[in-house]
Parts: sequence; structure tokens; C-alpha cells
Amino acid sequence: MQEKINSNSLSHLNESGDAQMVDVSDKQKTRRQAIATGKIIMSAPTLTTIEAGNAPKGDVLGTAKIAGIMAAKQTANLIPLCHPLPIHKIEVEITPNYDLPGYEIKATVAIKAETGVEMEALTAVSITALTLYDMAKALEKSMEITEIRLLSKTGGKSGDYYGVEKSS
Amino acid sequence: MQEKINSNSLSHLNESGDAQMVDVSDKQKTRRQAIATGKIIMSAPTLTTIEAGNAPKGDVLGTAKIAGIMAAKQTANLIPLCHPLPIHKIEVEITPNYDLPGYEIKATVAIKAETGVEMEALTAVSITALTLYDMAKALEKSMEITEIRLLSKTGGKSGDYYGVEKSS
Amino acid sequence: MQEKINSNSLSHLNESGDAQMVDVSDKQKTRRQAIATGKIIMSAPTLTTIEAGNAPKGDVLGTAKIAGIMAAKQTANLIPLCHPLPIHKIEVEITPNYDLPGYEIKATVAIKAETGVEMEALTAVSITALTLYDMAKALEKSMEITEIRLLSKTGGKSGDYYGVEKSS
Amino acid sequence: MQEKINSNSLSHLNESGDAQMVDVSDKQKTRRQAIATGKIIMSAPTLTTIEAGNAPKGDVLGTAKIAGIMAAKQTANLIPLCHPLPIHKIEVEITPNYDLPGYEIKATVAIKAETGVEMEALTAVSITALTLYDMAKALEKSMEITEIRLLSKTGGKSGDYYGVEKSS
Amino acid sequence: MQEKINSNSLSHLNESGDAQMVDVSDKQKTRRQAIATGKIIMSAPTLTTIEAGNAPKGDVLGTAKIAGIMAAKQTANLIPLCHPLPIHKIEVEITPNYDLPGYEIKATVAIKAETGVEMEALTAVSITALTLYDMAKALEKSMEITEIRLLSKTGGKSGDYYGVEKSS
Amino acid sequence: MQEKINSNSLSHLNESGDAQMVDVSDKQKTRRQAIATGKIIMSAPTLTTIEAGNAPKGDVLGTAKIAGIMAAKQTANLIPLCHPLPIHKIEVEITPNYDLPGYEIKATVAIKAETGVEMEALTAVSITALTLYDMAKALEKSMEITEIRLLSKTGGKSGDYYGVEKSS
Repeated sequence: MQEKINSNSLSHLNESGDAQMVDVSDKQKTRRQAIATGKIIMSAPTLTTIEAGNAPKGDVLGTAKIAGIMAAKQTANLIPLCHPLPIHKIEVEITPNYDLPGYEIKATVAIKAETGVEMEALTAVSITALTLYDMAKALEKSMEITEIRLLSKTGGKSGDYYGVEKSS
Repeated sequence: MQEKINSNSLSHLNESGDAQMVDVSDKQKTRRQAIATGKIIMSAPTLTTIEAGNAPKGDVLGTAKIAGIMAAKQTANLIPLCHPLPIHKIEVEITPNYDLPGYEIKATVAIKAETGVEMEALTAVSITALTLYDMAKALEKSMEITEIRLLSKTGGKSGDYYGVEKSS
Repeated sequence: MQEKINSNSLSHLNESGDAQMVDVSDKQKTRRQAIATGKIIMSAPTLTTIEAGNAPKGDVLGTAKIAGIMAAKQTANLIPLCHPLPIHKIEVEITPNYDLPGYEIKATVAIKAETGVEMEALTAVSITALTLYDMAKALEKSMEITEIRLLSKTGGKSGDYYGVEKSS
Repeated sequence: MQEKINSNSLSHLNESGDAQMVDVSDKQKTRRQAIATGKIIMSAPTLTTIEAGNAPKGDVLGTAKIAGIMAAKQTANLIPLCHPLPIHKIEVEITPNYDLPGYEIKATVAIKAETGVEMEALTAVSITALTLYDMAKALEKSMEITEIRLLSKTGGKSGDYYGVEKSS
Repeated sequence: MQEKINSNSLSHLNESGDAQMVDVSDKQKTRRQAIATGKIIMSAPTLTTIEAGNAPKGDVLGTAKIAGIMAAKQTANLIPLCHPLPIHKIEVEITPNYDLPGYEIKATVAIKAETGVEMEALTAVSITALTLYDMAKALEKSMEITEIRLLSKTGGKSGDYYGVEKSS
Repeated sequence: MQEKINSNSLSHLNESGDAQMVDVSDKQKTRRQAIATGKIIMSAPTLTTIEAGNAPKGDVLGTAKIAGIMAAKQTANLIPLCHPLPIHKIEVEITPNYDLPGYEIKATVAIKAETGVEMEALTAVSITALTLYDMAKALEKSMEITEIRLLSKTGGKSGDYYGVEKSS
């Protein structure tokens, strides 16, 4: 973990403690990328059914990916103090993992802008997972969405950040 | 866990495997409620700073709660096959837990309608957690959103569902 | 003014003081209507130019009216604790008043639902006024939006409400 | 008031009088800021109750501020001919004024872009006021939103603008 | 064509010619369904590439279908005088037609409500077609979206409507 | 037709066939413009009634134009893999054509950005047409939206494109 702590306060609060959307108009436009990951854990039969159901038409995983991509574009409308950003790239990957059992989700978001896209990547992962839940909830309601975190963040003045890999 | 498996297929796919928003126009309008929970785990200093920073104005937790409530109303715009619903109640609670350390989040959503509000409750929890992440990410990027799941679902023909309590 | 004070607390806060979207699922579905009014004050030349510019194509007032109608449908996405509602009627009227000088705006919203549409009517008036401002701001930036208030509210258990007419 | 009248027509209408979103692609990207203000007038007991109710948790004013910030980001979706803009800063302040009695609202919006953010600041003030109305309307329906206007606008080719201070 | 002309005026205009969202609060809640169709015409090689590209993962047609379903839910936010409706069913079908060459699109929308869902079905078809255009436009920009029309409308007081089949 | 085929694959699919929003962060910011056209065909009496009804207030065509302009700004929220863009200009023209009979619609969209605005222009045309349909559907349900296509696209590395004029 190489994160430089560049602040010891909550940056969305001003000096009187009020929430605000902080000024980034003087920051440099640089290429910034963020990668977030997450998991959805389910029973083995649920995973098997999705994988089987997915085979002929691809609608389950395809729908979840599209939902994640579209949600990344809604981030600033969902997270109150996020800056609206003309995002330049969004990619969502969903990988079945029979050991969980469940799916591993990974979202990569990039932009050339004054501020980063961590929240966009994390939002894409979250909504992708929620969509998988929605599409399988008739089979199993006890699925769990878990380990949503930032894998890496590159570009920008505050330095690059790489999360510690966890042995799952 | 008292879930009645009322389907052995993925209900959002039609018989040819295509995604669709299923017809609920013949279902009964009954009062339905869903409760979802989740956690965000952070370092002890981050939790302490949020709690302290929160004291004078209440903006951190208040902002996260409002974000969760507003997101619940956006569920059908985020989850592709969810039905748009005139939701009747949304409540979000955030509780600090120094043992995690972090916050426990709980969302309760209710409606009198033809279909349930599980996805609305899960979405409220997810966006509340993401907003907490956003507001504290200058302090710590390694926070993790975890254990998002359905605690209970009542009302509706498919029967009530209660998730198993986990000893955290 | 016949308003029955049916509460002595802020209804959007629960007993611990937290914001919430209150439960209306047990309330009766009745026809409810709200009328809100407001004004935008400008210089006489600005009013004359809008009225003249409006003559051939009707785009200025027409655009402002459409903006107000569409905004009423966004109310629950703008006002955090408002219930999303399938609104049944929205009408916006804009009347030039050379004595102000400026425009008087009136919005009427109706629904058959568990809760009222005051906020929808007030939002329609506000966005109609803002759109008029936007369309005339190259002429005059000192326009003022003023006296936005609820004229009446009928239907629903808490009783009808009629605002006092002001001699403007 | 130092406004340079740089146009004698309604800029959102083309030469045939049709509404359009005017071309700003050739304009210079400069830092632009707009400040708007407004008021909500209520009875003294309503103000006292909000201030008291606000004390323990801060949810009333906090919620209204968040609503204003989020609404500023929706401006181009609400005002038909506004340009969508990746806003760089939004701040909303709410100050109780026992002489009104009521609240004074002030929104500051900034961006480095081809066009200004007056409408964003005015929209933030309007929705903040509407949210205050919504949260206190169980106490009093006769509150009035008033004096919404542009306090200043700086940056951009058309020159700076400062509204005349009114003695309230 | 069995359409009963139940009006000889433009129903979205009031008696003074102003646009409004008409009052439907007194209408009966009945089950209503609308089916709309449309086509996108392209060159044979483009069709072949999409069909081939679609084979392994299903993302092209799947993405277009999801876009159509989600757009149907946005209808009242896009068409100014449409009523917001809690839609009960949306299904989109896309069929390749080598004789066009291109795709035939069909959307079915149903609801139990006071007003119909023709615009929702037509919007679903339109956005599905636009998404197909978007996904293939690197191959061919001369694709054409055509013959978007209402195939049938059932339920509601104004009587059922069936469009005349065209021999294409 | 001067289109340079600069790709022989579906650019929204990655090498494994998954849908993605492609990276444009390295592309040059240049001024780009797209013009799209389309038609709505109706019976002669419907056209006559709209034109007559339109005379006093201009609300029918004005409303449809505003809908098209506002929809262009929603393009990235409707078309899943479109990049969100701070659009710089949108203009919609609607011309009655008694030979169709019906209306011809033309949308011009411009931006200085890393990617083009074809989808924005096509979306503006589509929603303008749908709004005309909505406003006249009480008169005639058999109207048809047709010949939506790209007339021209200029700016950007892939070269300019001009569609072939059709003799209608």
C-alpha cells in the first residue's frame, strides 16, 4: 500500500464542518484511472443455474455489465459531493469463481480530468453486483455482496495507490 | 432461513432466455417491506475522525443517509429489470461499531404494491456505504464495503424471508 | 387561512432526529390537488422584449411552461424526502403583469394518491421562473424570483388549506 | 451594478425566433464563478422549532444543503437551454435570520469552462429553499420563498456582474 | 384499422392552446398494453458482422434490448406531457431480417393504470434502434431507423387499436 | 458518401466480445458537429390540425423541439456505451411537408471534445418525433416515424461523413 496521506481531514467538509463539493478548478487535467473490485457470494446451485442460464443468450452477465457501465455515468447523481465528470472509459468484467462460489467483479474507469474516478469504479462494481442479485433473487435471497474496494488509483497529484491483495 | 423457493429459474429471463421486465400487473397490491444491511470497514483512526468531524454539524452521516434515501428512489433507473415503484417509506440508519472498526448500515423500505422492495433496500445500503467511502477517502482509501445482504422481506405471495443472523 | 396544525414536529425527522421518508402506505388514496404561485420581477424593457420576442413563435413562455411541467415530474428526485408519485395532472400558467413588471406563474398539480402534491406544484413554479430567468438573462441579470408560495391544497386527511391572498 | 449589456436580444432564440441551445464551442475556457442568494420566510415559532429540531442531529439544514448541491448538478436537465457542465465547485450556506424570520440561503458555484454557472447557483438556492419548505410544511404551509437573485458573476468575456445589495 | 376517433382536438393543449399534462385522476385503472415496432436497415455485411460478433457473448443485441427496457422507464422524463407510470411489464424483441437487411424490433409494454403505455412502447423501440446504430456505427454510418409505429393498443375507454400490417 | 471505414469490428466490444465504453482519453479535443434527420408521416387532416392548433400559441412544435434538445443532453444516460459529453450546441428544426404529409425534423449538435455527437443528434430527432406523436395521438394513432439517419458528421480523426441525399 503506497498511499500518500495527503490530508488529515475530511475533504468534503469546509472549515465550519459543512458539506460542500470542493473546488477542483485549479487542478491539473491529467489522465486518471481507477480499478475497483467486489464479489457476490451465492450457493453453488445458484451459480450453476446462472452459468447454465447464461449460456444460450448471455443476458444475465451482459445485463449486469451494462448496468454497471451505465451506473458509473450516474455516480455524481448518486454520491452527493462527487464532481460530474465526462468519463472517457468504463469496462466491467465478471468472472465466475466456483470456490466462492459466486462472481468476482472488476471495474476499470479512466478519464483525463481535474479529479479522479474512484467513486465511479466503486459504483460500477456495486450496481453490477446488485443487478446480479436482482436477476438471481428468485433462486436465492441469501446472496451476499462483499469486499467492495479500490484496487488501484493512478494519475493525479496525490500519488498512485495500490490496495493490498487479499488471499481470498 | 424460511425462504420458500418459489421458482427454479431466473425470473428475469423469458422462455427463450431473453432479459425482460416481468409482468406484475395481475399480482395483488399488498404492503411489502424489505430490510437490508451492510458494513463499511475502516481503520480505527478513520472512524474516530469521522465521529469527531461529525460532532458539530452532523454532515457526514447525514449526507450518507440522504444519499441512500435518494438512491432507493433511483433503483429502477439503475437495476435494468426492476419495476419502477412509488415507494411509501425509506429509512436509513448508520451505527458506528468500534469493533469492526467501521459503520453498520441498515435500510428499511416499504410499499403497498404489486411487487417487493428488496432491491430498493439493498441499493440504499450500497449508496450509503459508497457515500461514506467518498467522504472519508482522503483519509483512507483501503476502506472496504462488505456483507451487503437482505435481512428480511415481508408481504407478498412468495412468503416472508428472514436472513440468518451472522455473528460478526 | 384555514390550515389545521396537525403536527407540532418536523415530520421528516424520526424520534431520534434522523431524516427519513415517512411511511404513507396506510394512508387513504384520495384525489389531492395543490396550487402554487410565484413571480419573476424584471425591468419594463425586458418584459417588453420577451413579450415581443415571444409573439412570432411563442418559444419563450412555451419553453418555460414545459420546463415547469417536466420539473414537477422530477420533484422526488430533487427534494430528498419527497415520495415518488405517479402524478395525474400538471398545468402551468404564465401571465405578464406590466405593473410588476414581470410575470406571474401559477402551477396546478393533481393526483389520486396517499400523499399530496404541494412540493410538485412549488417545484413547477420555481423551475418555470428559473427558465424565464435563463432565457432573458442576456438582457438583464438583476431579475428577481419572488413570492413562491402555496395558494391552496385540497384533499387528504389533514384538511384543506387556502393561503391568504396578498394585495401585490 | 456593473453589468455590460452585451446583447439586445434573447440569446436562446435563433434569428427565426426558435429556441435553441446556443453554440459555445468557440468560447474561451476560463474560471467562472456565480453566487446566488434567496430567502425563505416563516413564522417565528417555525424557525424556532427547526433550529431546536436541528440541534441534536443537524438533519434539517444538512439535508437542504445536500439537496441544493445535488440540484446544481441537475441544472442542465431542468432548464431546457442550459449547457451541461462538469461543475468544479458547489457550496451552499444557510443562515437563520430571526428578523425575517426565516433563513437566508447563498450558493456559490465555480467552473473552468466555456460558459457560466449563474443558473446552477440559482437552481441550488431554489431547491435548498424548497427542501426547507418540505421539511417544515407540517408546521406551517404559509412559508414563502422569496428574493432569489444573482449576487455576482465573475469570469467570462461579457464582464463581471455584481447585483445591488438590498437593505432587507 | 379499428381506431375510434375519440377526440377531434390535440389533447395536450388546453382550451387556450397551452400545453399541459392532462388530468387522468378520474379515469379507471384497467390493464392496458401497447405493442410498437420498428426497423433498422443496414448493409448486408454490417448485419453479418453483428450476427457473428454477437454469437460468442450476445452483447450487441442484449445491450440494445436492455437499453430499450430502461428507456421505456424514462419515457415520462423524455416526452414532456407523458404521465409518469409505474410500468408493470416491458419486453423487447430483436429479430434479424436478411431481406431488409437489418433488424426488426418489437416492444411490448403493459400496466394496470389510468392511462396507456403507447409512448413507452414507442420509446423502447426507438432507443433499442439507436443503441444498435451506436454499436455498429464504426462499420457503417448510413444505417437508417425506420417504420416506427404502434402495432396495437388494448385496454382503456377509448377502445382497442390495431395498426394495419404492412407488406414490407 | 465519403465515409472512411476506419474499423472492421464493432468498436464497443473488447477483444473477448464484451461490451465496454471505449477509452477516448488519448484522442484530440476538436470541434465536432453532427446533423441527423428524420420524418413523421401522418394523414393530411392530422397535419392540418396540428398546424392550425399550433398557430395561436405555438405549443406543439415548440414542445417537440424542447423535448429533442433536452433528450440530446440525456443521450449518454439512454445509449449504454455512449460517452457523457458537455455538449456545446443543440438546434432542432421541424418543417411541415404537405407532400408527405407530415413533418421533417433536423437536429444539429456540436461540441469541442474527444469524441463525436452523432448519437446526440439522432436521439434529438427521435425524441422530437416521439413528442409530435404523443401530442397528436388522440387524432391519429397510425402515424409513422421514419428515415431517421445521419446527414453529416464533421471533425475528428476518422474523417468527415456525408450521407447520400434521398429524393423523398
